[in-house]
Amino acid sequence: MSDISYWCELAWLHPGTAVEGVLVRVEGTRFAEVVPGVATPPHDAVRLAGLTVPGMANAHSHAFHRALRGQVEAGADTFRAWRRRMYDLAARLDPDSYLALARATYAEMALAGITGVGEFHYVHHGEGGKPYDDPNIMGHALIEAARNAGLRITLLDACYLTDGIGAPLTDTQLRFGDGDAHRWAERVDDLASEYAQVEDVVIGGAVHSVRACPPEQMPVVVDFGHRRAAPLHVQVSERRRENENCVKIYCATPAQVLYEHGVLGPRTTAVHATYLSDVDVALLGGSATYVCMCPTTERDLADSVGPARTLYEAGSPITLGSDSHAVIDLLEEARMVELSERGSSGQRGTWTAADLLLAATTVGQASLGHPDAGFIVPGAWADLVSVRLDSVRTAGSRSASAGDSVVFGASAADVHSVVAGGRRVVVEGGHLLGDVGTMLDHAIAALRD
Amino acid sequence: MSDISYWCELAWLHPGTAVEGVLVRVEGTRFAEVVPGVATPPHDAVRLAGLTVPGMANAHSHAFHRALRGQVEAGADTFRAWRRRMYDLAARLDPDSYLALARATYAEMALAGITGVGEFHYVHHGEGGKPYDDPNIMGHALIEAARNAGLRITLLDACYLTDGIGAPLTDTQLRFGDGDAHRWAERVDDLASEYAQVEDVVIGGAVHSVRACPPEQMPVVVDFGHRRAAPLHVQVSERRRENENCVKIYCATPAQVLYEHGVLGPRTTAVHATYLSDVDVALLGGSATYVCMCPTTERDLADSVGPARTLYEAGSPITLGSDSHAVIDLLEEARMVELSERGSSGQRGTWTAADLLLAATTVGQASLGHPDAGFIVPGAWADLVSVRLDSVRTAGSRSASAGDSVVFGASAADVHSVVAGGRRVVVEGGHLLGDVGTMLDHAIAALRD
Repeated sequence: MSDISYWCELAWLHPGTAVEGVLVRVEGTRFAEVVPGVATPPHDAVRLAGLTVPGMANAHSHAFHRALRGQVEAGADTFRAWRRRMYDLAARLDPDSYLALARATYAEMALAGITGVGEFHYVHHGEGGKPYDDPNIMGHALIEAARNAGLRITLLDACYLTDGIGAPLTDTQLRFGDGDAHRWAERVDDLASEYAQVEDVVIGGAVHSVRACPPEQMPVVVDFGHRRAAPLHVQVSERRRENENCVKIYCATPAQVLYEHGVLGPRTTAVHATYLSDVDVALLGGSATYVCMCPTTERDLADSVGPARTLYEAGSPITLGSDSHAVIDLLEEARMVELSERGSSGQRGTWTAADLLLAATTVGQASLGHPDAGFIVPGAWADLVSVRLDSVRTAGSRSASAGDSVVFGASAADVHSVVAGGRRVVVEGGHLLGDVGTMLDHAIAALRD
Repeated sequence: MSDISYWCELAWLHPGTAVEGVLVRVEGTRFAEVVPGVATPPHDAVRLAGLTVPGMANAHSHAFHRALRGQVEAGADTFRAWRRRMYDLAARLDPDSYLALARATYAEMALAGITGVGEFHYVHHGEGGKPYDDPNIMGHALIEAARNAGLRITLLDACYLTDGIGAPLTDTQLRFGDGDAHRWAERVDDLASEYAQVEDVVIGGAVHSVRACPPEQMPVVVDFGHRRAAPLHVQVSERRRENENCVKIYCATPAQVLYEHGVLGPRTTAVHATYLSDVDVALLGGSATYVCMCPTTERDLADSVGPARTLYEAGSPITLGSDSHAVIDLLEEARMVELSERGSSGQRGTWTAADLLLAATTVGQASLGHPDAGFIVPGAWADLVSVRLDSVRTAGSRSASAGDSVVFGASAADVHSVVAGGRRVVVEGGHLLGDVGTMLDHAIAALRD
């Protein structure tokens, strides 16, 4: 990771334009110099064809769900039936098998131009909830997986204490729980201390949801976030039933419960945020809470996509996540935010390609604790994601509208080069670890029932 | 195109199962023998890895719209503003530039596993509506383009006579019109006679829409269909405004007007069929009219997707089309039929992968005048489309659920081999004509304003 220069045929520079001939010098993990208007690539620079955008952030991932792809999308399974199958898989994970699966899944993300992942992590303990000798061994596996695959990771360790409001954990869920939030915090504090001086690993916290974390426990998680200045994530109003139960018991919506217990705020991300009242929107937006949209997962589970534009206008920056990994393609997540709005409003152009790329890059990276990533500017993390403009999907594009071509026409398959934190992770469409399809196949086969 | 054998690792055999080790012998353009359960590939057979499905049919294409990709999806353009940009492009087409653009577009289709295209063709004449010396020169260009690219073509020559109900054609639209349906029929009859003995070219007719073809002219188009036993296509209830105008003037919905003028029936395809009354559904289903869904185009234009399952249950076989070519990926069209239903009903599993593959293959091919295509059985057109099961998108799939993996997880980028009518059109992901991205780039650049 010594000094290296890249020459971008077209680079997506702040605040959202494709600029021709951009020479970028990288020192270690950071950009040292960015020079636009260099017509000819210098002989010692690596030439990056197509449009080079900043590194993308996948703000909501459950890495192990990747093993369910192709097994659970068809058929008439309800959410609860889907969840049973997901728990069956979770029951089979151990530190080694999870490392292998997560490494392959993160490598698939790298191939899609993702340089930072927010891993919403809750499979903590052994069978029956018995802690491993190293109680953070699963978190360590995820961190090792991401670093092997070339990604920064923000481990969003989730406080998961109940099956439903007032209902204790059962069966596989026992693996998720720490008993109470204090014991959760003790474990996660150890992890955070261990990585306090490490730039590419951020330890964040998560309130799993109002369903799985009692309100009186939430302030302990919030306190962890404040002490560590760490990102905090929470799943909010993903399904109507969650809202109904919450209102029945707490006489308040999930967003209201979270607000009242201090969970919302500018270091917090509310994931899903699908079924919201006007008050919920005001609470999320007014507190500058990030909202992470996961359109391909909502689509698969027959859920709606939340009111992204309304939230954005109320003050919530929007980020993107591939969640269940039915699809790993942040460009598809990005365009689906706009295309979902078209479906519900009948209006086009609520979101521009520039807005959507911002969500996929700068805003997503900031939400994961890296406000200095997702820009191509000196001092920022040296992430460069190059998207082909000469594939069958993108051919015919023009420089002036290259952002439109990439957001609305390209796919993960068009990403041909990825530099992540100064490291060349993807070259000519191939990952430095080798064939990712084979890695996925082996990791998933090892987990078959 | 002499005798050749293929050994499929997994083949999708009628009526919808993935079968391991299928040996297929091809003679000329047809399958001669299909033998399941051949564990080891014979040394003289071409080995096809992954899941091999029948050839897919793109039942609704406007080839020249491909040049608009990346230029018109972003922004807040209404349908009418979009259409103006489409007309600007149509005004620049000539027989040579259209041949080049259509050839590249059809080659993109071949790479996506499409072996037959229904080209809804209306750019017939020169500037101001002056016929070319050969009045079918544009149709000839499209036919040549498809044959070059390795596809069967069903040229659905559209009778396009008015701008709106009672409003004459203006400007670029003059290129579309023949004056009246009799002159349309005379021209198209010539074309049909020319190709009467040619198996890979079908000349069909089209009533453009109730907007652009007056009801009293429709029977002439219908008569052409009956005389020639030819497919007949018509765009129906694509937009609410179309319905409102039609009801205002004819006191009947578009489907009712078409029914009353004999346009519906088992050789007819109604395209879009988005905004339908219960009576419309009964008329379409009761007449066994095919319905062609174009989900990625509807999504782009902020339209809804029609009630596909209701139509299917009423008696309409469902086909798929990429229409405006914002996306050329029939697997995405197929899954979007189900995913759109999930969005509107909140229920999963209305369509199985087997149903959706049937729409993409057998049913689509039949609707284009090839009831003997879209099956892997002796005597049928020898089309074999092989989809990788080891890419990052599909890795981890299992033989028993390979159809689910392909429909819900794969994309056009996973198609690695295409045999169309006995001809190897795509080998190792490359098209026999060479680099299709470059072909598209050149063809589109030549049409820039």
